Amino acid sequence: MSGTTDQLIARRKKALGPAYEHFYERPLHLVRGEDVWVYDEAGKRYLDCYNNVPSVGHCNPYVLEALNRQAGLLNTHTRYLHHEVIEYAEMIAATLPGDLSVCTFVCTGTEANDLAYRIASTVTGNDGVVVTSGAYHGNSTLVDQMSLEFGRDHVPPDFIVGIESPYTYRGSIGSDHPNPEAAYAELTDQAIDTLASRGKKPAMLIIDSSFDARGILTPAPEYQQSVYQKVRAASGLVVADEVQSGLCRLGDHYWGFEDSDVIPDIVTMGKPMGDGHPVAVVVTTPEIAAEFAAKSDYFNTFGGNPVSAAVGKAVLEVVERDNLLGNVHSTSKYLLEGLHKLTQEFDLIGEVRGKGFFLGIELVTDRNSKEPATTQAAWITEYMRESGVLISKIGDYRNILKIRPPLVFRPEHADIVLQKLRDALTTLNN
Amino acid sequence: MSGTTDQLIARRKKALGPAYEHFYERPLHLVRGEDVWVYDEAGKRYLDCYNNVPSVGHCNPYVLEALNRQAGLLNTHTRYLHHEVIEYAEMIAATLPGDLSVCTFVCTGTEANDLAYRIASTVTGNDGVVVTSGAYHGNSTLVDQMSLEFGRDHVPPDFIVGIESPYTYRGSIGSDHPNPEAAYAELTDQAIDTLASRGKKPAMLIIDSSFDARGILTPAPEYQQSVYQKVRAASGLVVADEVQSGLCRLGDHYWGFEDSDVIPDIVTMGKPMGDGHPVAVVVTTPEIAAEFAAKSDYFNTFGGNPVSAAVGKAVLEVVERDNLLGNVHSTSKYLLEGLHKLTQEFDLIGEVRGKGFFLGIELVTDRNSKEPATTQAAWITEYMRESGVLISKIGDYRNILKIRPPLVFRPEHADIVLQKLRDALTTLNN
Repeated sequence: MSGTTDQLIARRKKALGPAYEHFYERPLHLVRGEDVWVYDEAGKRYLDCYNNVPSVGHCNPYVLEALNRQAGLLNTHTRYLHHEVIEYAEMIAATLPGDLSVCTFVCTGTEANDLAYRIASTVTGNDGVVVTSGAYHGNSTLVDQMSLEFGRDHVPPDFIVGIESPYTYRGSIGSDHPNPEAAYAELTDQAIDTLASRGKKPAMLIIDSSFDARGILTPAPEYQQSVYQKVRAASGLVVADEVQSGLCRLGDHYWGFEDSDVIPDIVTMGKPMGDGHPVAVVVTTPEIAAEFAAKSDYFNTFGGNPVSAAVGKAVLEVVERDNLLGNVHSTSKYLLEGLHKLTQEFDLIGEVRGKGFFLGIELVTDRNSKEPATTQAAWITEYMRESGVLISKIGDYRNILKIRPPLVFRPEHADIVLQKLRDALTTLNN
Repeated sequence: MSGTTDQLIARRKKALGPAYEHFYERPLHLVRGEDVWVYDEAGKRYLDCYNNVPSVGHCNPYVLEALNRQAGLLNTHTRYLHHEVIEYAEMIAATLPGDLSVCTFVCTGTEANDLAYRIASTVTGNDGVVVTSGAYHGNSTLVDQMSLEFGRDHVPPDFIVGIESPYTYRGSIGSDHPNPEAAYAELTDQAIDTLASRGKKPAMLIIDSSFDARGILTPAPEYQQSVYQKVRAASGLVVADEVQSGLCRLGDHYWGFEDSDVIPDIVTMGKPMGDGHPVAVVVTTPEIAAEFAAKSDYFNTFGGNPVSAAVGKAVLEVVERDNLLGNVHSTSKYLLEGLHKLTQEFDLIGEVRGKGFFLGIELVTDRNSKEPATTQAAWITEYMRESGVLISKIGDYRNILKIRPPLVFRPEHADIVLQKLRDALTTLNN
């Protein structure tokens, strides 16, 4: 420890620069974590309902043991043979449907999505990208251009085209449409036409099944099925960005795209895979992997090192051992019931959306006009933080509360969130 | 452990795909590492004269202690306040000259160089890149395009231009020129003119002071001074890629660019920073950082997490505590003396190049024609591996032996390399 919080903030401003943003009006100085709990420098405890990276809980002892054991033995890279990375790849492949069985290891979701483009463009010979609007896929030069989040002022280069996400609550096609999600899927044709008018074909569609940055959406399976089909008909591959929606988070399957009963050509994984340790993966089919290898090479110094592989394996083992998919499924059901009850009681809640441990609560000052309750969302987020519960807010208007806890979050923790949310909403009503 | 080496190779081919290449004809299955030594599955010991990532030695106990301690306490991200990342940034800044004091943390050298471009292009408003030919800067879509290694068949996009590296031994301007390095530096003007003819200006020059992928070069300080000056005159920033040449490796200073008595605008760091743990950094000035932050945002989930920061700090502490800069300086001098002696004895050695712990031995079948001794370089590399010494070979003709050990490599280890090299060269002569 060194210095008070205020001193740390001042030193941070100097050493890390102004691009580093904090959560919360009063930045949170955390010093310890355990399971779903984190603790600040004063010893105050917070229920973590936001972080998806510590997937099997902060400082999971089984994962720590694997980290310490392998770090004490050897840490090299994939130019040497090592059993851990092979076993880890085999375990990942076993969770995936179809021919998705060849893993390339990287360090971050950004690197995974960037490599997915290198693979897709190399294999198809095309260079276009179709992305859903409002998505965030990462921060490299290319992937930043592919992230059409609201509020970004840059115009994407001409090989990247967006399709409006199926946001029936607030998008251009509303729930009054007879089949809004089908209509959203139809927009894919326009995007492909736009690329064609520029002399381009799609190398890939990239899609995050949680539609996180767009406000958390759960279109029916037919939506992704239709979009996949259209992009493939235009000779593009499909990349499922599972950095957010993957590893059991949506509660019904290991991977978010499985909810739509589709099989992508490439799957990217990141954030939760290493319980905090930098682990990310690109998985594809043997055919695509062979075609890419014939035309290009790829080596990532840290990706798939023995320590990262041991940690990744341990995370998958905990997920299986503790049946965390089952836990997400049942605890989410319990939490959603509570949230729907709050919706009946508080008009501020316009819509509760999402699946599993990826939930959004869209706040509006008026349910008819859907005026975004931006101020209230900010107030509630800060109130929850002061009350010892960490959530966040997202959306174009920052009026959507985001609840996205570690996979080890249990019903007794849901009770705490629901109680504090009720307190916040009641206070706002008074 | 699982399976014999042959079985592992077969499983690896299936699980990791054909893009994963091995070192050595008989892939090395390493299972344990300690200081400068690694051990295979049969217990055979190898002197590591190749790996720069385990900078302070394989499984350094001080670094392991920091890793285990912080991993057991908390691992989150930079949206919360944490003292470790601030202290680490301050320690890095203290090693750097000029105003280079603001750190942004990423996970890999690729991410660092990719972010350097985002910063340089945002701040200058230009989009051109000047790179030295034959360089390797990383593997993202953009950084791969910026890596003009020999043998890559892709043509870089029109905003990237290469300048021939100052390879006086084999390049287009030889040592018979009255001032070859000045002539190489002059090529920068052509590159800037080429960009101008395409309506572009340089956002940045990126330069690796070790010229690793080009075969390890050590031009006089005036070379980089001249190139820096020309790019800056054309309104570009200068990025020193210290992923390879940084952290005391060149033996005279912490950072490779310091050997040329220049101060870049942006410095990127990677490989050795975490002794195997994924740690990478972009450092720039407060002015550039502020300008970038005003026009863009950046967040890296894993970059600068408390565990990575604690590990990075521990590495810097070991470097200081054990005076590894001094060790590189003196041990390299000893090793180079031995290599120069071998050069006098064996005609196969055309030139010994490099500095510190970044040495290249260019092999030729004829010193006059400089015919590359590709077969011999391959044979020696394999001979050394079988004799328990790990080195590698690089260069357009793969005829340059590369010696690039951890910073804790000592004179007694140099004796082993020199003896085994002598054995190999003697065997070849018989």
